[in-house]
Amino acid sequence: MTLYVGVAGASRPEPALVGQAERLGRRLAEAGAVVVCGGGPGVMEAVCRGARSAGGTTVGLLPGLDRAEGNPYLTVSLPTGLGQGRNLLLVRSSDALVAVGGGFGTLSEIALALRTGTPVVGLATWSLHLGTGPVDAFPVATDPDAAADMALEAARSRSEAAPERNDGA
Amino acid sequence: MTLYVGVAGASRPEPALVGQAERLGRRLAEAGAVVVCGGGPGVMEAVCRGARSAGGTTVGLLPGLDRAEGNPYLTVSLPTGLGQGRNLLLVRSSDALVAVGGGFGTLSEIALALRTGTPVVGLATWSLHLGTGPVDAFPVATDPDAAADMALEAARSRSEAAPERNDGA
Amino acid sequence: MTLYVGVAGASRPEPALVGQAERLGRRLAEAGAVVVCGGGPGVMEAVCRGARSAGGTTVGLLPGLDRAEGNPYLTVSLPTGLGQGRNLLLVRSSDALVAVGGGFGTLSEIALALRTGTPVVGLATWSLHLGTGPVDAFPVATDPDAAADMALEAARSRSEAAPERNDGA
Amino acid sequence: MTLYVGVAGASRPEPALVGQAERLGRRLAEAGAVVVCGGGPGVMEAVCRGARSAGGTTVGLLPGLDRAEGNPYLTVSLPTGLGQGRNLLLVRSSDALVAVGGGFGTLSEIALALRTGTPVVGLATWSLHLGTGPVDAFPVATDPDAAADMALEAARSRSEAAPERNDGA
Repeated sequence: MTLYVGVAGASRPEPALVGQAERLGRRLAEAGAVVVCGGGPGVMEAVCRGARSAGGTTVGLLPGLDRAEGNPYLTVSLPTGLGQGRNLLLVRSSDALVAVGGGFGTLSEIALALRTGTPVVGLATWSLHLGTGPVDAFPVATDPDAAADMALEAARSRSEAAPERNDGA
Repeated sequence: MTLYVGVAGASRPEPALVGQAERLGRRLAEAGAVVVCGGGPGVMEAVCRGARSAGGTTVGLLPGLDRAEGNPYLTVSLPTGLGQGRNLLLVRSSDALVAVGGGFGTLSEIALALRTGTPVVGLATWSLHLGTGPVDAFPVATDPDAAADMALEAARSRSEAAPERNDGA
Repeated sequence: MTLYVGVAGASRPEPALVGQAERLGRRLAEAGAVVVCGGGPGVMEAVCRGARSAGGTTVGLLPGLDRAEGNPYLTVSLPTGLGQGRNLLLVRSSDALVAVGGGFGTLSEIALALRTGTPVVGLATWSLHLGTGPVDAFPVATDPDAAADMALEAARSRSEAAPERNDGA
Repeated sequence: MTLYVGVAGASRPEPALVGQAERLGRRLAEAGAVVVCGGGPGVMEAVCRGARSAGGTTVGLLPGLDRAEGNPYLTVSLPTGLGQGRNLLLVRSSDALVAVGGGFGTLSEIALALRTGTPVVGLATWSLHLGTGPVDAFPVATDPDAAADMALEAARSRSEAAPERNDGA
């Protein structure tokens, strides 16, 4: 059964994240996973470029209505017109999510994934604090290879477990 | 530039439509179009089976949260959790839409496409009347080959025209 | 228990429909129903003006992101940013729907209501044909008073029946 | 011009937050603001109870399809069927947002508000860290009265400024 791994990340990331995102995409594709993302530039483009370089399939869920706004490395480019509503669509489409870097859109995807039971792996991203201390809400990878391995493992476990999904609906 | 053609149709169609939908999918894929649909059984499954038999790419926008509910002929299967809200997503993802048969979901997709400026081609589907007479809102094909040709032509024209899209937003 | 009646109708209707929509709004409010609509001008504004003139509550589900685009007769004005996606939100928010006039947005709301089991009443709106003949998909009122009565009765029956809703999800 | 203040908070909060949420709702209603929330129990119910006790108007954007799941203190109860997609709807409907307590749904609303330019005020909620240190992304109130004042001021400034909204679409 094909695994779908979502990658959340900013359109204008710190430069150091671009190479990591490309490496992440390549590793996910080498493992046979479909890579789902927001379809834009920055982290999204880099992860798609990496995935395509390994012959992988990439899906972009664009916020707007114009397919041409997708990056050049999308196998399938879907203009959703949902604005930031596509963030939840990304979470629902993913068996596991890797969050890369520190945008607020990425934070929303982390939160929606945690809320709906989708496994999250962090890579140079937000950490959460409540009251006086940190909350250990999701595992953090130290490099893109580890992030890919952790996300694939989480996606596999979840996919096999015929997961209950709780979307509050 | 890759064209995306949406196909709307019921999960429990009249049996005669199944063969036509399969033929439609094959023709769209032979022309290099990506086929987008609701990802379910019936017309949706038939059109995907046809497209895959010609080596095409198929995308299913599932109403629920479980990827396993997609039909077996999907290249990319996306659980949206939007219920009938995925109908608008199908329209937004399509450069042109073929409406097959007479379900109410299909009627909603025709209406949303007409409202938002996405070309529609009918195949054994609804016709619309207002006041005392029929309204000629979209062209109707007499067989799946003609439907494919008409939809591809409409998608091509629209794609080249850098279309204005009006989604009321 | 408060009933919610949705009213679908165009922003630029035939002039004759404006008076009918205002009358419809007044009758719904006199019966204690909350009126839900798309919040815009035309039929939507008229139905709200009528409802407010009888002391009623009106809710506008705007397609865009700017609350100021709502008409002046809204008790509650909600910018959804969903574009035509707010049409499904209108259907889901309504215990019954009155469709006024002949826009494609209105047609989409009729179709989504029929698909999801929300009772529809027509007033000078679309009729549907399939194959060689008309399909009697929903009752049609001859004037706004009858439309209000029919919608209220349908909303009441449905509300009491603790209805199963089927949204395909 | 009427201000709309959204309140995000968990359905099963720490008990100490319930009284604070009720106080917050009362203060917002006394200032004439419409209170928008997810319509459920816990923080959402408490804030509505407070607002209604001061004669205010409350709007609940329910995740499911059943209006009866709304709390008893809603002026307007809207079943959206969007699941956690209603979180974005709450943000879009609000001129400013108060985030109460530590749920992941609340975190998603904070993130979506920050991403789309809606002012956020925190009350006993998440703080965000990136890399080695905290990020001061939104102001934090020490009690519900201050939270109400800060949110009303932010909503007023924004409403008067005819704000640009950026939803990434």
